[in-house]
Amino acid sequence: MQRALALAVTPGVPLGPNPRVGCVLLAPDGTTIAEGFHRGAGTPHAEAAALAEAGDAARGATAVVTLEPCNHTGRTGPCSEALIAAGVVRVVFAQPDANPVAVGGAGRLREAAVEVVGGEMIDEAQAINRAWTFAIAHRRPFVTWKFATTLDGRSAATDGTSRWVSSRAARLDTHRLRGLCDTMLVGTSTVEVDDPELTVRDEVDEPVAIQPLRAVMGLRDLPTDRRIFNDRAESVHLRTRDPEIALAELHARDRQHVFLEGGPTLARAFLAAGLVDEVVTYVAPMLLGSGRSAVADLGIHTITDALHLHVTDVAVLQGHGGEDTNVRLTMKPQKRSS
Amino acid sequence: MQRALALAVTPGVPLGPNPRVGCVLLAPDGTTIAEGFHRGAGTPHAEAAALAEAGDAARGATAVVTLEPCNHTGRTGPCSEALIAAGVVRVVFAQPDANPVAVGGAGRLREAAVEVVGGEMIDEAQAINRAWTFAIAHRRPFVTWKFATTLDGRSAATDGTSRWVSSRAARLDTHRLRGLCDTMLVGTSTVEVDDPELTVRDEVDEPVAIQPLRAVMGLRDLPTDRRIFNDRAESVHLRTRDPEIALAELHARDRQHVFLEGGPTLARAFLAAGLVDEVVTYVAPMLLGSGRSAVADLGIHTITDALHLHVTDVAVLQGHGGEDTNVRLTMKPQKRSS
Repeated sequence: MQRALALAVTPGVPLGPNPRVGCVLLAPDGTTIAEGFHRGAGTPHAEAAALAEAGDAARGATAVVTLEPCNHTGRTGPCSEALIAAGVVRVVFAQPDANPVAVGGAGRLREAAVEVVGGEMIDEAQAINRAWTFAIAHRRPFVTWKFATTLDGRSAATDGTSRWVSSRAARLDTHRLRGLCDTMLVGTSTVEVDDPELTVRDEVDEPVAIQPLRAVMGLRDLPTDRRIFNDRAESVHLRTRDPEIALAELHARDRQHVFLEGGPTLARAFLAAGLVDEVVTYVAPMLLGSGRSAVADLGIHTITDALHLHVTDVAVLQGHGGEDTNVRLTMKPQKRSS
Repeated sequence: MQRALALAVTPGVPLGPNPRVGCVLLAPDGTTIAEGFHRGAGTPHAEAAALAEAGDAARGATAVVTLEPCNHTGRTGPCSEALIAAGVVRVVFAQPDANPVAVGGAGRLREAAVEVVGGEMIDEAQAINRAWTFAIAHRRPFVTWKFATTLDGRSAATDGTSRWVSSRAARLDTHRLRGLCDTMLVGTSTVEVDDPELTVRDEVDEPVAIQPLRAVMGLRDLPTDRRIFNDRAESVHLRTRDPEIALAELHARDRQHVFLEGGPTLARAFLAAGLVDEVVTYVAPMLLGSGRSAVADLGIHTITDALHLHVTDVAVLQGHGGEDTNVRLTMKPQKRSS
């Protein structure tokens, strides 16, 4: 299963609407017959790729796969049937298929007298497809809210200047995280004021090949010459101020992971709606003493109503060449303590 | 020298005005004859302690000592003379004595035909006596400013409530850092408003045996029933608003390390005077959105004037039993980037 998990995250596989899956076919003596992984929507599933490589050698084999084999015909046929037809006698999988249209593979295999074991290394497998798993379970994309702040909670000085609060290492890291999402979301005011291009750029500031969707939400019309609408990536204007409606529209477009970068007001709306699943904060070791607050007024008046975050990761982003060392905190919102 | 450095930081030695020093006497064949360390003001110096243990065996020995042997008669006699009298033929020391009244030991030893080598592991030795070294060089105490903040730069909610922004682990850690200083400093308004006891307490909330000086600065008279004036530790009211004068008074009292805990206004005064040498910030993963700012207005209007801090350490203070995980940043102020 370790090997199957490693196959699932083979570098270069585009993050699409499909889950990342790896598969290893083992002979009865435990030797590897064939391996496969899913290369993105429209390409063969991991099991099909491994079976194609194995050919007749798959007869009598054990298939170790990171996700329960699917049981439906989409752009490719059902893997359950392919495994049965190839003569596979045992299937070990990690994560059960949560997709309602694909579920039932384990049952179909058992009907055909294939031995099935599920749940092995399930946590590791779910972590690989965190957003996919979340989106299916919650019927909306997973939302990561990212903000940068000085040590004293400011995002800009009193005159509005803010370049740069974050270090270069933190900005590069932000591009890396953007690239792990399939959607970036801002509000109309951010587009009007800052006019960001909202592309994912690499270390030499070039746009990467596969770009997330650039979504802007809000009721205001926007001039079409804004950089977010250029041809570097897909864009969409969601004509709503309601986070729930925006996420429903993105879910309908098969979007599973939204990177929220839209400024304090948009973040407040998502927080108030309970629609922030993860918070990533870059803390710059810098004091301004005054200026724009990194986080908007949340209507919290007393300490017991504070919004507590559960820290899941702390990373030190070392500064080079006299740049500040920034600290990245990754957190999950908790219920208010009151 | 490793062993001498370890001796210097023998647990239980009170942090007094004197530096921490360790000494090892070695026979010509490299075996250890005797060891000594300084146990605080008024007790024998490390060299004297080792010589007393060695007796006649010191003749022909090498003394390895973490600080250049002193050359003056204070509460104890000069170590240089004691080493010469004992027949030590070689002295290896780490840090040169920076104390103007004690300096000259190496020269005196060389006059008496003792071989002298200085500077071995000097960084490690200076780190042990960081505040002592600083205070002698700058003729004032080293100043550590500590503040706690939410992720969005708040120290209290809009209604003034602030218990607790920091986790229990962060509060315990603060007591540990207080105990490494010899003075805690607050302003009169903190005493009036919060009435802190300002003692160092251990893990079961009991005051530790050796307490730093509790200093309050400001022109206002204070009621004598304030907790800072109780008999748990020494207290002093410095009748000035000027950080420079306050530090001069503390230096005159042999104080070497001030832990500044006095709220935003006092911190601003020290920052403006360039009298903050270290910043320790506890970041609580909590959002308030509004409320009291952790850092006062510093008169900074544009981002290029931001006060940048150089991060020297990041520590994750794991929360237990549902408590927040806090992050401690230790930093040194840098020059403003403009």
